[in-house]
Amino acid sequence: MIELYELAATDDKQVFSPYCWRIRLALHHKGLPFKSIPWRMTEKDRIAFADTERVPVLVDGEQKLSDSWKILEYLDERYPTPSLEMNRAELRFFRHWTEMVMFPGMIRMIIDEIHRTVHEKDRDYFRATREKTFGMPLEEFAANKEAKLEEFRKSLNPLRATLKAFDFLGGSQPNLADYLVFSGLMWARCTSPMPLLAEEDSVFAWRERMLDLFDGMARSIPCREMN
Amino acid sequence: MIELYELAATDDKQVFSPYCWRIRLALHHKGLPFKSIPWRMTEKDRIAFADTERVPVLVDGEQKLSDSWKILEYLDERYPTPSLEMNRAELRFFRHWTEMVMFPGMIRMIIDEIHRTVHEKDRDYFRATREKTFGMPLEEFAANKEAKLEEFRKSLNPLRATLKAFDFLGGSQPNLADYLVFSGLMWARCTSPMPLLAEEDSVFAWRERMLDLFDGMARSIPCREMN
Repeated sequence: MIELYELAATDDKQVFSPYCWRIRLALHHKGLPFKSIPWRMTEKDRIAFADTERVPVLVDGEQKLSDSWKILEYLDERYPTPSLEMNRAELRFFRHWTEMVMFPGMIRMIIDEIHRTVHEKDRDYFRATREKTFGMPLEEFAANKEAKLEEFRKSLNPLRATLKAFDFLGGSQPNLADYLVFSGLMWARCTSPMPLLAEEDSVFAWRERMLDLFDGMARSIPCREMN
Repeated sequence: MIELYELAATDDKQVFSPYCWRIRLALHHKGLPFKSIPWRMTEKDRIAFADTERVPVLVDGEQKLSDSWKILEYLDERYPTPSLEMNRAELRFFRHWTEMVMFPGMIRMIIDEIHRTVHEKDRDYFRATREKTFGMPLEEFAANKEAKLEEFRKSLNPLRATLKAFDFLGGSQPNLADYLVFSGLMWARCTSPMPLLAEEDSVFAWRERMLDLFDGMARSIPCREMN
């Protein structure tokens, strides 16, 4: 059976990396059963076999893959039906929009809460590496959440307008664009108590539909969001 | 023959409205010949027959249509091949991204130059209406172009990354997403001398490909950009 190494909190089931979520959703999309292997940031040795220090790592027989995009490409080639349409440029745009607009907007609000969420043994490592990256204490980087929330919600405007007219970015059914964006929202939902979406938001309603997919798979994951 | 009322500068051929450009490109996409009817902002009476004060206005036999999105929907229904795929949610996202991210980022840099570009008889009207909308003199609204240019270019990052991997947003051929985004760039190109794109940018290279489409149709339009 396919094995997926996923970043987990103290609770093995609380998987929260947006890059791992992409793969989890893609596997469900294709109806492929898999075994989730919880992994923590400081367990570099456990994934060294895949020549990487980061998850997701996917093991499928002889195949040992890292890098979420490469894994998606592998899955779509090896298990073509139903397709993820990896060769479509518009879908690629959603990858970059998610990584370049959505993630940066979110991380400034949730980084201190991610620190509280990661496994106890990862906390010092997480703080040290992230404070080096951002050049300041996590708490300073995450200050003024309210102002940032307004900016973040504004950055979702094109998504919001689209989801007023369609059930999913894929139209009547979810596709890779939905999975990519939703993975970002699961990152926040699993790590931070602050609700990022207002309940009357079309993005909120869409997220509810995404939470319902695959027999409520995403809804069943332990989360910290108060919503 | 189909007639398209388009916003023009003093030169009848210098059409610069991004909403009109969408229709112009859609008509070329479908290989539909049309007659361009140059129109100026103060000529409300000339389009009153279509029950609107704004262009684009499209006349096709008995049909008299305004609103660029409604016109696109009409064209795609009436002339289905080749399709614009108006019913695809991902493409709708590009409409909203263009209108909500790209246009606001551009207008703050080019509004004073648009004022110099509009037909002489439109200038007072343009200044009065826009200064009322923005609550300040056009020159003030357009100040600090350099800082805004940096922000604008950053806002194109998801587009930039996508166009490093694909020739067009439609993949190997342009589709509605390309037309929507390119229409925005034609707005700037036709009205403002300041080059918005660096020549080494993948967005620049893509724009060159778009300028080449339909026997260089867009390239043949008088422009003010020094690039």
